[in-house]
Amino acid sequence: MKEDTTIENQVRTLGEKALKASRAISTLSTAKKNAVLETLASLIETRSASLKAVNEKDLDAGEASGLSKAMLDRLALTDARIRGMAEGIRQVAALPDPVGVDLSHYDHGQGFRITKRRVPIGVIGIIYESRPNVTIDCAALCLKSGNASILRGGKEAFHSNTALAALVQEALRAHGVTEDAVIFIPTTDRAATLALLKMDDYVHCLIPRGGEGLIRFVAEHARMPVIKHYDGVCNIFVDSEADLTMATEIVVNAKCQRPGVCNSAENLIVEGRSLQSHLIPIAQALREHGVELRADERAKAALTAAGIAVVAATEADFKTEYLDLILSIKTVDSLDEAIDFIHTYGSGHSDAIVTSNAKTAAQFQGLVDSATVYWNVSTRFTDGFEFGLGAEIGISTDRLHARGPVGLEELTSYKYVITGNGEIRA
Amino acid sequence: MKEDTTIENQVRTLGEKALKASRAISTLSTAKKNAVLETLASLIETRSASLKAVNEKDLDAGEASGLSKAMLDRLALTDARIRGMAEGIRQVAALPDPVGVDLSHYDHGQGFRITKRRVPIGVIGIIYESRPNVTIDCAALCLKSGNASILRGGKEAFHSNTALAALVQEALRAHGVTEDAVIFIPTTDRAATLALLKMDDYVHCLIPRGGEGLIRFVAEHARMPVIKHYDGVCNIFVDSEADLTMATEIVVNAKCQRPGVCNSAENLIVEGRSLQSHLIPIAQALREHGVELRADERAKAALTAAGIAVVAATEADFKTEYLDLILSIKTVDSLDEAIDFIHTYGSGHSDAIVTSNAKTAAQFQGLVDSATVYWNVSTRFTDGFEFGLGAEIGISTDRLHARGPVGLEELTSYKYVITGNGEIRA
Repeated sequence: MKEDTTIENQVRTLGEKALKASRAISTLSTAKKNAVLETLASLIETRSASLKAVNEKDLDAGEASGLSKAMLDRLALTDARIRGMAEGIRQVAALPDPVGVDLSHYDHGQGFRITKRRVPIGVIGIIYESRPNVTIDCAALCLKSGNASILRGGKEAFHSNTALAALVQEALRAHGVTEDAVIFIPTTDRAATLALLKMDDYVHCLIPRGGEGLIRFVAEHARMPVIKHYDGVCNIFVDSEADLTMATEIVVNAKCQRPGVCNSAENLIVEGRSLQSHLIPIAQALREHGVELRADERAKAALTAAGIAVVAATEADFKTEYLDLILSIKTVDSLDEAIDFIHTYGSGHSDAIVTSNAKTAAQFQGLVDSATVYWNVSTRFTDGFEFGLGAEIGISTDRLHARGPVGLEELTSYKYVITGNGEIRA
Repeated sequence: MKEDTTIENQVRTLGEKALKASRAISTLSTAKKNAVLETLASLIETRSASLKAVNEKDLDAGEASGLSKAMLDRLALTDARIRGMAEGIRQVAALPDPVGVDLSHYDHGQGFRITKRRVPIGVIGIIYESRPNVTIDCAALCLKSGNASILRGGKEAFHSNTALAALVQEALRAHGVTEDAVIFIPTTDRAATLALLKMDDYVHCLIPRGGEGLIRFVAEHARMPVIKHYDGVCNIFVDSEADLTMATEIVVNAKCQRPGVCNSAENLIVEGRSLQSHLIPIAQALREHGVELRADERAKAALTAAGIAVVAATEADFKTEYLDLILSIKTVDSLDEAIDFIHTYGSGHSDAIVTSNAKTAAQFQGLVDSATVYWNVSTRFTDGFEFGLGAEIGISTDRLHARGPVGLEELTSYKYVITGNGEIRA
């Protein structure tokens, strides 16, 4: 207990520093912020050898503790990844500064003006898992949007994260910006995480980046607003009026182009009347790409009759983000049934319809309650870069504040600035 | 325990209905929504006698249980208040429909278009205290913004709320809109409130309307995002370059015009060098308006020497939302000190500077981290109507999603609608 109180006090001290820093950097010029980012990019490149040496410590410890190959891969800082971090920082520097933009104004009848102005949120806490590049991505995006950040990385990447955070501090110092603008929590004690989640007097927003377990833990314990990204159970509805070639290309692309990411498709929905015309040829193409098919009874019967390998889909399959070359298939008899299926089993991330009927498409895009709703386009495009936001800190499956890709603008708030000449209320 | 489970199941059933209704009404036409509102306004007027009769039951019960006079006053449905409710509904009907508006678009290099479109949030839960008119205000604002709502009113107004909710149902039915679009929880059992707060699978946003105790309770227990309005500890900084007449008018207006509301001033900040030139005459005017003054040592000494009645302010005074004719006075020696004071003691609601120096004003408006920051205007204008938003459901002291007055647009989310011609990701 005593130890926990000590850690909580230490984290609270960091929170107080971050809040103070957030006020200092909220009005920092764009030129100054970009200068810090350019310096950071250069530092990461010139110190690549020592970064890799430090990263070896994490990799050795990870191997000793039995981390999976996939985990070790995520942890590794290769030359390509180090270049990627530096390039990412330069891309953030090149983006327009979202802060200080006047969003709208209203001239009050008594003669004064009310201006809605974009400002930073304040202090953003980020809790993440094993990838060390998240340290740099988040520091850069928060700094460019004028926010102070408190970073709490995973224990597997502790040495790498500490070294990267030290470079951020060096870049801030080089330009006379307070080091407290980016605070890295120097412990991986779980008590530090809990202390961070309780600190709603110092931290205005929490962004968890990692698996579902982490996100649920943060959502449950955080006292401040959380920008969440739950899983991406993305659906594609190929209706009976879909162009077959287009539908096949979109389904294959959405499933196979990069199956391990959140915007890849997990469920294919087809109409009962087009099992022969559409499902069979699409399924053949998917099998040629090595996709395992799991289908409901009607689709399974049609596929089996056509000699296509398929297993029975369970209820759980339709809710699963496989992140793998597996696709569930659902048969429906109407647009409404397809939409109900998406609302029941999807995660509100990215859903698509393929059809040549504009009216059907408009109904689908109007009624499907998801962050991104596609018509005749692959779901794989849900991404901050592809949406023209520049870099993104994640993709929100929430509805408040930010929905879909979270870029620099989504990392801001606003305030009303009112200017008059002595007006009082009657 | 058994009973709680029963209530929780009942509330969950209501949540499921609300979610379903939210999808049905998300694309309702503006004409249909306005027709329901017009009918509701007429019903409230034509049924005013029976509404008052039902309200008597609440008033009698309140008197019997020893409610304060102020509480009983809030509870009473007078003819004027009934007319006010009907007029409020018609004002909401007259406002532009925020739903379906395209906010921006981005043409992707591969030839398809990404449109950011405003959509309802979904299901909004509202927990409120004794004023029955909140039932109508919230139902009208949620319906106009395309959201389903679940209303949980205070037990003191239970009969009045139930009668008003029945009129809402009648208006919905009259136009063939699902009654589940506005659900009134037919119990004031605390277990129902807790069940509502846990239901993040059905309720997308929670808005508590009432005292700080209610808001803290909701913020602590809610699993979904909450739009909060903590207290309004509003500050006015009269700097040494302020026009004295303007400063006096603004301070008197901000404190005295309606002291019981959140945007009235609680703290006056003055510069040490202008205690004689500014504080004394402003304090005299405040005393003439019957304001009790509580001052820090320097201000108190100056006021006492000038024969003006004043008591010593405590640390707690500076953090207190008096909602009464009491004003705390703080002496500072610089703009920075004034801003630090506002960040330490204010609540981030509405803060003002009075000065004729534009540079000082720009610094103040840039650095003060509050929802609304005034220059030479009374803080009393922080209000949805005054800001041109039309009706408001409250004033947010949060930074995410909504800050300051929360009108129809703040009750919406957005989604990305993407339309193309078979584009896939390379």
